[in-house]
Amino acid sequence: MPPRLRSYLPILDWGARYDHAALSNDLIAAVIVTIMLIPQSLAYALLAGLPPEAGLYASIAPIVLYAIFGTSRALAVGPVAVVSLLTASAIGQVAEQGTAGYAVAALTLAFLSGGFLVLLGVLRLGFLANFLSHPVIAGFITASGILIATSQLRHILGVDGSGHTLPEMLHGLWSHLGQINVITGLIGLAATAFLYWARKGLKPALRRAGLGARAADVATKAGPVAAVVLTTLAVWVLDLDALGVRIVGAVPQSLPPLTLPGLTPDLLAQLLLPAILISVIGFVESVSVAQTLAAKKRQRIDPDQELIGLGAANLGAAFTGGFPVTGGFSRSVVNFDAGAETPAAGAFTAAGLAIAAVALTPLVYYLPNATLAATIIVAVLSLVDVTILQKTWAYSRADFTAVAATMALTLLAGVEVGVGAGVGLSILLHLFKTSRPHVAEVGRVPGTEHFRNIHRHEVITQDDLVTLRVDESLYFANARFLEDLLQARVSDGCDVRNVVLMFSAVNAVDYSALESLEAINSRLSDMGVGLHLSEVKGPVMDRLRATHFLDHLNGKVFLSQFHAWQALARPETDPALATQ
Amino acid sequence: MPPRLRSYLPILDWGARYDHAALSNDLIAAVIVTIMLIPQSLAYALLAGLPPEAGLYASIAPIVLYAIFGTSRALAVGPVAVVSLLTASAIGQVAEQGTAGYAVAALTLAFLSGGFLVLLGVLRLGFLANFLSHPVIAGFITASGILIATSQLRHILGVDGSGHTLPEMLHGLWSHLGQINVITGLIGLAATAFLYWARKGLKPALRRAGLGARAADVATKAGPVAAVVLTTLAVWVLDLDALGVRIVGAVPQSLPPLTLPGLTPDLLAQLLLPAILISVIGFVESVSVAQTLAAKKRQRIDPDQELIGLGAANLGAAFTGGFPVTGGFSRSVVNFDAGAETPAAGAFTAAGLAIAAVALTPLVYYLPNATLAATIIVAVLSLVDVTILQKTWAYSRADFTAVAATMALTLLAGVEVGVGAGVGLSILLHLFKTSRPHVAEVGRVPGTEHFRNIHRHEVITQDDLVTLRVDESLYFANARFLEDLLQARVSDGCDVRNVVLMFSAVNAVDYSALESLEAINSRLSDMGVGLHLSEVKGPVMDRLRATHFLDHLNGKVFLSQFHAWQALARPETDPALATQ
Repeated sequence: MPPRLRSYLPILDWGARYDHAALSNDLIAAVIVTIMLIPQSLAYALLAGLPPEAGLYASIAPIVLYAIFGTSRALAVGPVAVVSLLTASAIGQVAEQGTAGYAVAALTLAFLSGGFLVLLGVLRLGFLANFLSHPVIAGFITASGILIATSQLRHILGVDGSGHTLPEMLHGLWSHLGQINVITGLIGLAATAFLYWARKGLKPALRRAGLGARAADVATKAGPVAAVVLTTLAVWVLDLDALGVRIVGAVPQSLPPLTLPGLTPDLLAQLLLPAILISVIGFVESVSVAQTLAAKKRQRIDPDQELIGLGAANLGAAFTGGFPVTGGFSRSVVNFDAGAETPAAGAFTAAGLAIAAVALTPLVYYLPNATLAATIIVAVLSLVDVTILQKTWAYSRADFTAVAATMALTLLAGVEVGVGAGVGLSILLHLFKTSRPHVAEVGRVPGTEHFRNIHRHEVITQDDLVTLRVDESLYFANARFLEDLLQARVSDGCDVRNVVLMFSAVNAVDYSALESLEAINSRLSDMGVGLHLSEVKGPVMDRLRATHFLDHLNGKVFLSQFHAWQALARPETDPALATQ
Repeated sequence: MPPRLRSYLPILDWGARYDHAALSNDLIAAVIVTIMLIPQSLAYALLAGLPPEAGLYASIAPIVLYAIFGTSRALAVGPVAVVSLLTASAIGQVAEQGTAGYAVAALTLAFLSGGFLVLLGVLRLGFLANFLSHPVIAGFITASGILIATSQLRHILGVDGSGHTLPEMLHGLWSHLGQINVITGLIGLAATAFLYWARKGLKPALRRAGLGARAADVATKAGPVAAVVLTTLAVWVLDLDALGVRIVGAVPQSLPPLTLPGLTPDLLAQLLLPAILISVIGFVESVSVAQTLAAKKRQRIDPDQELIGLGAANLGAAFTGGFPVTGGFSRSVVNFDAGAETPAAGAFTAAGLAIAAVALTPLVYYLPNATLAATIIVAVLSLVDVTILQKTWAYSRADFTAVAATMALTLLAGVEVGVGAGVGLSILLHLFKTSRPHVAEVGRVPGTEHFRNIHRHEVITQDDLVTLRVDESLYFANARFLEDLLQARVSDGCDVRNVVLMFSAVNAVDYSALESLEAINSRLSDMGVGLHLSEVKGPVMDRLRATHFLDHLNGKVFLSQFHAWQALARPETDPALATQ
């Protein structure tokens, strides 16, 4: 088999070695994940503003396609909270919720997102996702969690309301306060409280009640199912829907339908940027989950092939009535903990969900939307982590600025603006930091061959010899900084005769910096000052050798700073030199 | 006197020490520069699409204001070719050439540009100009030179035509070829040939004819004046304007008028971006000229104060009938060579030009536009330097790409697009390079404490100990690269027990990279592999100490790589260790 084909189809690799033990482990994991995914899928469809069945459909074909093309053994693909929020925000701008156009826009978004991911994967451009810095992601996820939780309050309270930013949502809630449905509110708050407790307190309580660790674990994971069953029964038995409690209602009993995304140029143009954003955010989240789980078994995932796997999953969603999907954190961890060994576990989960879509949908007719909202709120609150503000503040102001701006703009101006500004700002801050590099004037530590910062250590220096250690690669953004610094340093000290630039931390010199070095060299020549370099790295030296810089250099290149000192320092300043 | 005031008003510094010798040197320099500036000012006004007197006005108040606020002793401020081209391109988009609105837009552009420069200067943000990399500037200047020369061909040939890109200009010339005025063409070509020869061959010829070096030099500088005088006389005596030769015509005899820039929000909004572009390009050019000249006398210029000096000059231009100005290369060099000692030389030049504006303008009535166009063409051709393409190609593909893109886009899509794309591209290329840093796996050079690349040197390694030297600061764009690399390296080599990251070239670790290191640490822990650091720099160590990273690190931080080797290598692999 050609190795290229094998790299594009990881299934050929693990499929060939599939055995009975793996099958049994995968089946057990699939049952657990399926139970957990049914209410979650319905809930994320609600969050995306789509009919509940879309959540089930978005979990079936994508899981199977990821199993074929993806490289992670444990990743579970499907609708996730942040991507659903981004979906709602993007398609809310092109169509009215509840219309046919809205569902078609969701398909188109999944199609564009899938196509973009596959393209990045084939071009091996996965590294582009790295420009989304960790603080930006953390700030964005936290702000998204707050937005999602707020957006679900209206379902908990049974009121209308909409909006894609925090002020819009709060205003919507405020202006509909009069409509609160008390029974819906009671169901919603009870479900939220129960789910929150189930997350934190159910497992210890079950253990205390004598249940085994494994059974307590499974029972805890089934908490949302219990909430669904109990509130559905309550509505059905007490006829609460007649009192204004909004319910899921009729869900078609069907396998995922074949659907076509809308491909009008207008729609594609409007959804392209949101699709790119969704792809990148989904990819970053998914890869970090996959990498964490792979490391636990010393396995390896291939980020570029992951792009193809996630892209295929989204294309699958686009043609089977779904919406954008990615690898989810909680479902993947459950899958992993439940013992899934290969992506086949995902395929079995898909089969379980397909059975649910065909056979079980009548059972959720009386399921109150408030319960689904409670499921979402409890799930996303675990995403909210404002300690990132304190952590980055303590670590570096630049990182803090990026987090704070991302968070504030996501809440106040929406998800696209928040992420866009975060990425732009973190790039600018990085360029800003490297544009004013740390440059230390160094002198010789007595009795050693070491040279250290004259402001931090007791060192030997001499007036006519200036040695600067540049702690940054030289490139256009800091080239002129070095020019200015040297001009200031040398014109201030009128007796300077030699300047040594210590290049131990200079990993690269670009063409701008080369020209700056040439300018520095010719200006120092005009002043009668020698320019020398020391400890230049191999790759940098190779570049410089390809130019005329070294021919024109009015000083020398020294292998080490100590060699430079031996050649340039006057023995009367440093008695040790005289004896050497 | 408060030192702050003195720093904002450099004139207080040199003015207090002004003496007779300096006065006489400054006066001589002023006479020479004035003679050179008269035709140049008229020509650049033509290039900007403005009436000729605007060029004189733009040279008077700005020179005086720069003398007060600027820090360079020799810089001569006024209209220059590239800025005039940018001006024509910017205001051509908001008003028709020849209308009152066009001249007002030029004032507004100078006003915005001046305000922006002063703002940057007061906020000490001059370093922002560094994001214009040398290759981008070189490519832009060369492409601008070609555009300018092409734009003047229509004056040489006496045809109509317009356009701001090379294809537009060539199309304009082509479609008006039938209108060529033969006499204009003869004057234009003769003037171009004469000026070109005057630049290269006049000085040697005069020396051969027995003239002294200094006199030959001055006579060469007066070449453009000779061309002006000769062609003006020809038109006047032979009545060539009646034959269709376009002439400068009536120029008002007046001191610079008081003018007001247009300040409607619409106009300001349309011109803001071009004004920023003009400011930055003008500033970069001006500072590099000023720095080069200052170095020759071991003087110092202050880039932030230069912003204020150039800003004041542009504000002056805005209120006295001018257009955007900056420090020009050729006039500054002439000023410097002529012996200017202080900015007072500039003030005397301004006085000379004021006299010319009042008394001499009738003399240029019959001056053919073709002669001015010839002046411009010969001047800008010296800017065209396509060797930058070869030089950057030889040095680095990234720099070459930036130059080539800037050049091509400037010619084909206009100056704003060209510079914008160049800046964006050079930032992206820089980020791209640093996002995939050079990481060398190193081993011990036998008999030394040095560790070098295992692929380049004969070194001692051992299978269960991997040492990676990371040759780049770690930040968001390359943090995940390191994660992927380590995961691949460690999951490939199943017997790896310890990983050492050698941080000698890591100048900074941002929060994203910190989180990546934490992720690497916990994944390696899961695999039972120790993670160690060596040769961590002081500032980086300070940051890491402020976090819990070092507490969780499942290995140690070693002062040097040799210490790490001593602690982690098995003596049977490296016999030298056993004896130590």
